[in-house]
Amino acid sequence: MTKYTIGLDFGTQSVRATIIDINCGEEIFASIYQYKNGVIDTILPDSNTELPLDSALQDPKDYEDGLVYTIKHILNNTEINKRDIIGLGIDFTSCTIMPIKSDSTPLCFIEKFRDDPNSWVKLWKHHAAHEYALKLNEIAAKRGEDFLYRYGGKISSEWMIPKIMQITDESPKIYDEADYIIEGGDWIVQRLTGRLTRNISCLGYKAIWDGNFPSKDFFKELNPKLENVCDKLSGKVLRLGEIAGYLNSDYQRKLNLARIPVTTANIDAHVAVPATTVVEPGKMVMIMGTSTCHMVLWDRFKKVTGVGEIVKDGIISGYYGYEAGQASVGDAFEWFIRSSIPHTYFKEARDKNISIFNYLTKLTLKLKPGESGILCLDWLKGNRSVLMDADLSGLILGIKLTTKPEEIYRAIIEATAFGTRKIIEAFENSGIKIESLFACGGLAQKNGMLMQIYSDVTDRKINIANSTQTGCLGSAMHAAVAAGYYKDIKEAAKYMSHLKDRKFIPNKNNVSIYNRLYKQYSRLHDYFGLPKNSEMKILTEIRKEVKKVSKY
Amino acid sequence: MTKYTIGLDFGTQSVRATIIDINCGEEIFASIYQYKNGVIDTILPDSNTELPLDSALQDPKDYEDGLVYTIKHILNNTEINKRDIIGLGIDFTSCTIMPIKSDSTPLCFIEKFRDDPNSWVKLWKHHAAHEYALKLNEIAAKRGEDFLYRYGGKISSEWMIPKIMQITDESPKIYDEADYIIEGGDWIVQRLTGRLTRNISCLGYKAIWDGNFPSKDFFKELNPKLENVCDKLSGKVLRLGEIAGYLNSDYQRKLNLARIPVTTANIDAHVAVPATTVVEPGKMVMIMGTSTCHMVLWDRFKKVTGVGEIVKDGIISGYYGYEAGQASVGDAFEWFIRSSIPHTYFKEARDKNISIFNYLTKLTLKLKPGESGILCLDWLKGNRSVLMDADLSGLILGIKLTTKPEEIYRAIIEATAFGTRKIIEAFENSGIKIESLFACGGLAQKNGMLMQIYSDVTDRKINIANSTQTGCLGSAMHAAVAAGYYKDIKEAAKYMSHLKDRKFIPNKNNVSIYNRLYKQYSRLHDYFGLPKNSEMKILTEIRKEVKKVSKY
Repeated sequence: MTKYTIGLDFGTQSVRATIIDINCGEEIFASIYQYKNGVIDTILPDSNTELPLDSALQDPKDYEDGLVYTIKHILNNTEINKRDIIGLGIDFTSCTIMPIKSDSTPLCFIEKFRDDPNSWVKLWKHHAAHEYALKLNEIAAKRGEDFLYRYGGKISSEWMIPKIMQITDESPKIYDEADYIIEGGDWIVQRLTGRLTRNISCLGYKAIWDGNFPSKDFFKELNPKLENVCDKLSGKVLRLGEIAGYLNSDYQRKLNLARIPVTTANIDAHVAVPATTVVEPGKMVMIMGTSTCHMVLWDRFKKVTGVGEIVKDGIISGYYGYEAGQASVGDAFEWFIRSSIPHTYFKEARDKNISIFNYLTKLTLKLKPGESGILCLDWLKGNRSVLMDADLSGLILGIKLTTKPEEIYRAIIEATAFGTRKIIEAFENSGIKIESLFACGGLAQKNGMLMQIYSDVTDRKINIANSTQTGCLGSAMHAAVAAGYYKDIKEAAKYMSHLKDRKFIPNKNNVSIYNRLYKQYSRLHDYFGLPKNSEMKILTEIRKEVKKVSKY
Repeated sequence: MTKYTIGLDFGTQSVRATIIDINCGEEIFASIYQYKNGVIDTILPDSNTELPLDSALQDPKDYEDGLVYTIKHILNNTEINKRDIIGLGIDFTSCTIMPIKSDSTPLCFIEKFRDDPNSWVKLWKHHAAHEYALKLNEIAAKRGEDFLYRYGGKISSEWMIPKIMQITDESPKIYDEADYIIEGGDWIVQRLTGRLTRNISCLGYKAIWDGNFPSKDFFKELNPKLENVCDKLSGKVLRLGEIAGYLNSDYQRKLNLARIPVTTANIDAHVAVPATTVVEPGKMVMIMGTSTCHMVLWDRFKKVTGVGEIVKDGIISGYYGYEAGQASVGDAFEWFIRSSIPHTYFKEARDKNISIFNYLTKLTLKLKPGESGILCLDWLKGNRSVLMDADLSGLILGIKLTTKPEEIYRAIIEATAFGTRKIIEAFENSGIKIESLFACGGLAQKNGMLMQIYSDVTDRKINIANSTQTGCLGSAMHAAVAAGYYKDIKEAAKYMSHLKDRKFIPNKNNVSIYNRLYKQYSRLHDYFGLPKNSEMKILTEIRKEVKKVSKY
């Protein structure tokens, strides 16, 4: 008897749902729903309230609408017997949080709070809490808080506590009225099941939790009101793949589904790890899109330079889950294509009846490593790992009057590969061996040239996930575990996740040239990245002064 | 009674002639002739002979054809009485040389030598003699030759002796058959007057001459055949503005002109100095085009870091003439516009019915100094002054995902201005005061935005030459001196050369931001420019290896 689970993947612009055959991982039908209000970054919906710079809010109604739309869309388009659907798994962007009442009503649903931006969802990339993160880090350092060590010395402004500090400071009333402050994923679970749970992944990676939160004294020093913040962060803590609850009657009716189990929520990037077949140490999973996340499992805690996110059981139970990242990858390529490809190239592409991307790829493929003499630093959105510094910027070196756009394009791609190699080396320097690479996400699926460059630069074989929707697949896998079909995620991975036949194998000639180029990349990396008074940081300072923008 | 002289300016692609009223410097009529064979860099004309990489040859017939065409064109289009034309002045690119017979016949005019590239004119930018320059510098250093000091430690591959070494080594027969090897300017003088002369400017700047050439021993060590090279470089040495001879009967007939005096030849960049009104120390003249030449007068010899061309009486009699330069200026802007402006910008410009250049200027003018956070190094063709290193390359730093093309464009312009400031500082560090700047050439005439940036970056007033043809004007001025109309070039400058009313005055707010940016430019300049093992040089090495091109 074939059984199915549904994986729900809540992203930045949309939610995707896929129904999956849990025997083999086959994706039977997928549906996508674009959030109506998308990312709210200038003005609140149905309002005149302008948002501060660097805000990124969302509307929880979009999540619920998307959930209902996509699941109904699936059910209306498949012949599957509903009794064979045995579970629902959820992953979500993180850290994406909102203040709610104890009955799960978001404060932004309540008329009197609707004009206050702090009642809305703060999306993971909401950066307006930057000054609060600075304050938190300063106080934590002064107090010698242990957790700083665990997080690589720095709590990010994207994480839970700085975002709560912003709410508390700017809108104390919202803070007071909120019974809970909750991650989007946990909120969806609460809506579906009626049970308030917290997944250990979000807690561990984003909420300074490792079984306990920091002390009341610490929170009090951030803001006297925050003394009781742990109450607002309470709820049953669940491990990944556990049952958070069962579909409540309201949603049974709305979705026309049975009282099926709903798994605890998970972080979108993390569910991709088992969906890419990886459930053990020695393998790095890269989700490659506008940015890249690198995930690694290891059986012990090891300090890794510039890797601030290490959580026990955070990705796969039984291991420490390590997450590193590069802030701009596909974004950087897109920047280049958008702003630096001359009109003559577009004309050539049109004449050949191919896309500008394919034309550029064609030209780039003709180049040999090292031939252009161009070397880049890939920090167009700062450096996440291993320098953890948002004030760094991109660099192109080696330009000559004869330099062609495809030479710079290739050098930017190579720079992101060098950046990945830096991360691999940071792990290996801590004794965490990275034997081979596993890639998923849009770039990994679509750009073979890029994957070959990554293989040559890192001198490692790269496997590509078979699934183009590793988020949904990973969530469906956790749901299959929760439903008791598999004893754990390792077993689920064995049957449900697969790799493409095409592997990328290092070309030894290229490896040797790239080793030499990487040495130069490393010199630039250290020269510009390490000192506090680097040219890049001073330019950023001058720039901010001239633009008179806020400090972030 | 109004009198006139004709200035002939032999450039890289064309010759220009202008007839000028010597009372006031008014340009009465100008004519231009594009060389039929232009720059010969792949295959010899009427031949199958392929040229080695980095060759740049010319056809002397183009010079003569252009001379006759332009002067006739002038005479046919003006009502001037030929008796009122009292002299002819000549300037030429340098070091541009050819082997000739004693009757001035170029060896490339002789059928049996025509297929040998070494019989043709080697243009100033012929770089195929690079390995000979390396050998020369090595031998000179080993022998402790004094002249190295005078030339900043290094003889350029663009200069006379390396080019002769190439002829001697590759085509010993051509060397043997050549009675003389001569600069293009001196050859034109010889053709017009029948007299073999040498101008001290070319000798001093390009031929390792300061009253004498290096010793026979030295030349012998370069190549035994070169022991007698001084014989092939002989001829009456003349100072600038002296009469080289009188138009011979052949050319009187060809041009329909009287037996007027012809001045000694001069270097094209140098005649622009008096044509920009500058005949005394403390003023720097910049000829701004694809590259920039910076010329300075001083009453003594001073060692200036990275300035290798310092010749007594070389620009204006009575002073040491200093020449520095930036290898790519307009070239760098052109590279950027050609290869990095997106098609959307071309569309915008078309919609506004303005040129892409004007559209880009409009956008660039809106930017404040420091606002973009972008900083560049302007070494797209290496660095001539003050680093004297062809293996350096360009750099763009500070790129973000939001970086716009006009921000990089402005930063490249600023980088060339910072490069000029470096040169000014090199002079001032040697005690040579640069009070104000004088600019001529296409960029100075056409790009007010750029000139304002230069003024702000250097914190100096910039005057612009009134003439758009400072080559022709300067040659005509020297002709007026040779004809005895003025007692010297200073007096000629007083009457014949003028400045535009529009001056560029530093904006003090911008000066203070640029001082801060310049500090960062200087750090990059020293980091990448000074050490022998800089990232740029290693990349160039790798590149050459990969491309397997010749050493140059």
